[in-house]
Amino acid sequence: MIKKIFERYFLGKNQPDQEKIWDFRSSLGSMFYPKSIALIGASNDEKKLGAIVLKNIIQSGFVGEIFPLNLKSPSILGLTAYKQYQDLPVVPDLALIAIPAKFVSVAVDEIAKKGTKNIVIFSAGFKEIGNEGLALENELKDLIKKYKINVLGPNCLGFVNNLAPVNVTFGQPVKNKGNLRFLSQSGAIASSIFDWADSNGIGFGEFVTLGNKTDLNENDILNYFAKNDISQLTKENGSSDVVPIGMYLESIVDGQEFIRIAKTISQKNPIFVLKPGKSTESKQAMQSHTGAIAGEDYVFDVALEKAGVLRCEGIEDFFDLSRTFAWEKVPKGKNIAIISNAGGPAVISSDYVSEAGLNLVRFDEETRRELEIHLPRAASILNPVDVLGDALAERYESAIKTLIVDEDVHSLLIILTPQIMTQIEETAGVIGKLSLEYGKPIFCSFMGGSLISKGEKILNKFKIPSFRYPQRAIRVVAQMCKWKEYQDLQKSMVDLINDSESTSESEMALPNIESSSKLLSTVLAQGRKNFDSFEANQLLNFFGINTPQTKKCESLQTAKDFVSENNFPVVLKISSSELLHKSDSGGVIVDIESDERLNQAYESLNKIIKTFENTSSYSIQIQKQVNKGIELIIGSKKDPTFGNVLMFGAGGLLANLIEDRNLGLVPLDRYEIEKMVQGSKVYQLIKGYRGDEGYKIDKIIDLIFKVQNIVDAHDQIVELDINPVILNREGIWSVDGKIVLG
Amino acid sequence: MIKKIFERYFLGKNQPDQEKIWDFRSSLGSMFYPKSIALIGASNDEKKLGAIVLKNIIQSGFVGEIFPLNLKSPSILGLTAYKQYQDLPVVPDLALIAIPAKFVSVAVDEIAKKGTKNIVIFSAGFKEIGNEGLALENELKDLIKKYKINVLGPNCLGFVNNLAPVNVTFGQPVKNKGNLRFLSQSGAIASSIFDWADSNGIGFGEFVTLGNKTDLNENDILNYFAKNDISQLTKENGSSDVVPIGMYLESIVDGQEFIRIAKTISQKNPIFVLKPGKSTESKQAMQSHTGAIAGEDYVFDVALEKAGVLRCEGIEDFFDLSRTFAWEKVPKGKNIAIISNAGGPAVISSDYVSEAGLNLVRFDEETRRELEIHLPRAASILNPVDVLGDALAERYESAIKTLIVDEDVHSLLIILTPQIMTQIEETAGVIGKLSLEYGKPIFCSFMGGSLISKGEKILNKFKIPSFRYPQRAIRVVAQMCKWKEYQDLQKSMVDLINDSESTSESEMALPNIESSSKLLSTVLAQGRKNFDSFEANQLLNFFGINTPQTKKCESLQTAKDFVSENNFPVVLKISSSELLHKSDSGGVIVDIESDERLNQAYESLNKIIKTFENTSSYSIQIQKQVNKGIELIIGSKKDPTFGNVLMFGAGGLLANLIEDRNLGLVPLDRYEIEKMVQGSKVYQLIKGYRGDEGYKIDKIIDLIFKVQNIVDAHDQIVELDINPVILNREGIWSVDGKIVLG
Repeated sequence: MIKKIFERYFLGKNQPDQEKIWDFRSSLGSMFYPKSIALIGASNDEKKLGAIVLKNIIQSGFVGEIFPLNLKSPSILGLTAYKQYQDLPVVPDLALIAIPAKFVSVAVDEIAKKGTKNIVIFSAGFKEIGNEGLALENELKDLIKKYKINVLGPNCLGFVNNLAPVNVTFGQPVKNKGNLRFLSQSGAIASSIFDWADSNGIGFGEFVTLGNKTDLNENDILNYFAKNDISQLTKENGSSDVVPIGMYLESIVDGQEFIRIAKTISQKNPIFVLKPGKSTESKQAMQSHTGAIAGEDYVFDVALEKAGVLRCEGIEDFFDLSRTFAWEKVPKGKNIAIISNAGGPAVISSDYVSEAGLNLVRFDEETRRELEIHLPRAASILNPVDVLGDALAERYESAIKTLIVDEDVHSLLIILTPQIMTQIEETAGVIGKLSLEYGKPIFCSFMGGSLISKGEKILNKFKIPSFRYPQRAIRVVAQMCKWKEYQDLQKSMVDLINDSESTSESEMALPNIESSSKLLSTVLAQGRKNFDSFEANQLLNFFGINTPQTKKCESLQTAKDFVSENNFPVVLKISSSELLHKSDSGGVIVDIESDERLNQAYESLNKIIKTFENTSSYSIQIQKQVNKGIELIIGSKKDPTFGNVLMFGAGGLLANLIEDRNLGLVPLDRYEIEKMVQGSKVYQLIKGYRGDEGYKIDKIIDLIFKVQNIVDAHDQIVELDINPVILNREGIWSVDGKIVLG
Repeated sequence: MIKKIFERYFLGKNQPDQEKIWDFRSSLGSMFYPKSIALIGASNDEKKLGAIVLKNIIQSGFVGEIFPLNLKSPSILGLTAYKQYQDLPVVPDLALIAIPAKFVSVAVDEIAKKGTKNIVIFSAGFKEIGNEGLALENELKDLIKKYKINVLGPNCLGFVNNLAPVNVTFGQPVKNKGNLRFLSQSGAIASSIFDWADSNGIGFGEFVTLGNKTDLNENDILNYFAKNDISQLTKENGSSDVVPIGMYLESIVDGQEFIRIAKTISQKNPIFVLKPGKSTESKQAMQSHTGAIAGEDYVFDVALEKAGVLRCEGIEDFFDLSRTFAWEKVPKGKNIAIISNAGGPAVISSDYVSEAGLNLVRFDEETRRELEIHLPRAASILNPVDVLGDALAERYESAIKTLIVDEDVHSLLIILTPQIMTQIEETAGVIGKLSLEYGKPIFCSFMGGSLISKGEKILNKFKIPSFRYPQRAIRVVAQMCKWKEYQDLQKSMVDLINDSESTSESEMALPNIESSSKLLSTVLAQGRKNFDSFEANQLLNFFGINTPQTKKCESLQTAKDFVSENNFPVVLKISSSELLHKSDSGGVIVDIESDERLNQAYESLNKIIKTFENTSSYSIQIQKQVNKGIELIIGSKKDPTFGNVLMFGAGGLLANLIEDRNLGLVPLDRYEIEKMVQGSKVYQLIKGYRGDEGYKIDKIIDLIFKVQNIVDAHDQIVELDINPVILNREGIWSVDGKIVLG
């Protein structure tokens, strides 16, 4: 049994459904590469959606057949128009709907009857406007199920596929082909991306907007992307060797599936996501905008990390990563060299380099000597290299040439300020030439306004990303390196897995799932959602988790009997499924070491219980006091998008003083749990503090594993919390457990 | 005595030297508004500094006399040239030096002899190139002292004063007059600022570069700025009502003086600083670039906070703040309203708003109703307001008009994405018009590329700051509000001071400075820098600080005698001026509660001492053990730039687990100390944790005051550290003090 759990954890539980993927591949292929397109709601009125979309299709260079549908006009923009979908001479690969929401269902029904499998619905007025729209959307859902069709939208901007080519949007996209792939839940943000891409000479392969995601969602499109490699189609001189995917998402439909697909893709191609939702305010805004419900944001971060997906800090980040991943190779490592013609910006950049976790490489003697030969005496030959304010293009060239062949240098950042002698365009040209020649990643920061923009234009032509501020360049390089690290880690994971499996397996006892299921049923049958202390202890025990000796005290005598069996010191506490934060209400008395104290404590808890309304649901619990040790917290919480999330950190008093919340998405393998524990703040105490002998973390890892087994076995558990877990020389003790059912 | 200390602390000790200020005013006035300028090293060779500067002076529209000096040519750029400074027909107000470093001193001597009081030295090759240059710089220093002249530089770019007008730089500055004032240690960064300002239509009053700061430094120029109000000269339609000062600094010459001047200025006008130095790497870069030595960076942050100066996160921040403070009024409060034609960016912006500490205002019913009337049904009338993708300029206008009159709205952020219907220029025009009409702060984010840049140009004309990314706009608004809060706080400080003075004074005992001075002398006379535990205790006691009973144990018998007097429990520890981290080496044994334990402990410490080399400098100390309580740390460290820095935070074990380093620059008044304590993490424990009764913080504040008195009285103390300070029900105890002399 445990062996199986291990295998599943190590190998990942959600194996892709091969048939489903094949399905997407074939049918979505005919969506994104249609041979014929029908447009319901085509119009001659230039301001109407039905005209804009039609014009976009024509101008995109689409070579297939186009069938406009319109009830009145026999011809739209010079093309023969049809009144009824059933009258079309062929079965179009793709149908577009640009008519008011209330007519959409009828249209979909006709389209599907004819046999068309792919539909894009531009129309707004569905769930995003409230109940009325929701009813329409549910109608639509039924039709999708009935006819097994692929629907993009409603309330979306459509998509562009520059590789087909075809543009079925009502935006103003560029036709530049390139290696970028975009996936956006919001259509509006697309217009900014189009304008930005156009003025920076940036091309893309596909741009897909999702809208309400009634049918097709991010996972479907990602699956399609994963199966359709466009790297050969978009290869260009000077561009990077990856096919980056940029996403704007407000929600994720199926978190576990998302992680699986994204993980597969990001082994080879970078994915970066812009997702709002950090603040309560923005959650509200999202609900009124697109009807999405945001999961807790920190869980999202953990999920992305697991999948190797980068998260953008903002829209600027999104643009910067798009351009950089499209154009520049990912550096081999974190060593960066800076060349600048101004001291100030170089100094500031050094700050960012270390903040961003990059390494300002120390040049070896050979490189320093080479720089000394080519640069004037006053120049700095340390990193950052200061080529001085009067540097012409030639001096930049010598410095770059020296550093570009240094194997310790993984990337170059070239800063230029427009000083009186500076040859802005010539320098840009030199950088472009050397980039093509040597292929080492180069990033630029030409700082200023209209003077330097001439240089930027040349850099753009060479596909060298330039940023107005060096900070941006460094941030992007750091993100690239982060993705590189993820890739490297994935490659080395297999060994790690083999190592861990052998060491840990033997220690684990088999969980008693039968008994624990019975216990859950009992609690649920009583209409309760919370376990009391005893039940919580029992459940933990069924999964092999150590809890201190404990007993429910019917009377003071029971407590005394417990002491004669287990000796002092003991703890007395109130147990109830209605009282989850015991110590807040004085419901826990510790350090009881004498009969007198025991009497007092029992009395005092009894008094407290009497102040409660429903006295009968409370009882007094006696527990053997565990010796002092390090207090930890281990818990699990069910996230609506990503499922069970494990938490580990400092417990007891510390938990409230230091923010030590280390999360992991179930299923976690041993290596991931180890990383989680070692990444915590309390690990400083665990590994031994100021001469204290440390603890091995095996016992903690095992305990987290057991907690994982519990929540994995019982889907009804929405919250599990052990606080404190006490780690001392005798072992590891789960002193106080809380369990909440959903 | 204490009364005096209080007064000093509350009123600020460094009163400005009125005479000195008058001095700057008059003499620097003739530097920045010269009637005549001489240029040593003038040249006809266009590429030479001496030609570039001369051309700049002429082109700047300078109306005074210009005297080029050149040993060979009788005429430079059409002006009569002179061979010798003494031959000049008048005494120029300002002399510029553009000749190699080795000839500079001779030139300065001649200039000063003639009577010219103001000199700008462009020449590089001084301390920034090492020892050889340092010698030249020292020579220069002597001349400055001898002749009492004002020297800007060397190794600087000069200055521009668009109000004179005069441009004595070798940069490419714009001539646009405006309300910004710039002060930069680096000249190179200026070229980027000029280019950026030019292409954004931004003007400035003065731009002063400091170079090596051999004579004039940031404080001198700030003083000059403070005394020369240019607000009337630079008032323009649409611009803000302040005169912002932007600084790029790598070091600060006199920290206390800087705080004093900056504090005065920032009551009225915002100051923002860009200063590198966060990382070790950049410290190195600075030393090789301009020879500056960076003080510890976090102290700099505390100093800026005290002075009400904003710190820029990077160059982008610097540019953004420059433009915004120059153009837009500071919002009255933190309530911001967002209008957008795209849901996505609006949602993301909501995130930033709460992250930045601003408040996404909830509209009242009236405003909501008004919005409902003017916006289509599908629009969001909550904040952010979504005017929808098809919004024309008119719809933006209605939304802005509704919100701009809402008194709960302190500022507006208007986001525009270039969708197919969007009227980019018209919308920009509408925003500009409404801004002029209502005067409420408006910030824009037109997102995209070349399409939206046409709108940006119009916004620039109206002096409405627009940012490509809403995040930037929000960051800037938050910074503005931060400055506003500082201003408000300063205004309310007088009352607070009066309150605090009355409550605390009586409790303080007079320090025994005579005895403490004697103690210091004794330690210094022995050639030591460290106090041993007894000496440290003594010094603390002289200032009225509670330490637990303690005694040096010549023998075990002394320890036993101590116990009969003071009872168990006791602590035994090794005392030595050579052993500052006792517990690391097992040199502290606590919880001694029996004779047997006492014997063992004494034995064990003796053994440890025997392992040391210089056995005689160690002794065993016995101390009454203080009851458990909250462990704190209180310390002070001398910063080379800003003087004594007090530190407060969690002590003992916690100090190493949580970063709880709360700093304050001496002198601190009671209110500042209170804020420091309340801002700490350990304050959570102090004020009472989970039902525990809390502590009043008066005792902590008094203790910090006493520590401040110590370091203030004894300039030789460079480090003072009390850890732990134990706060318990009996009082507050300084258990272990360390004192290091400089």
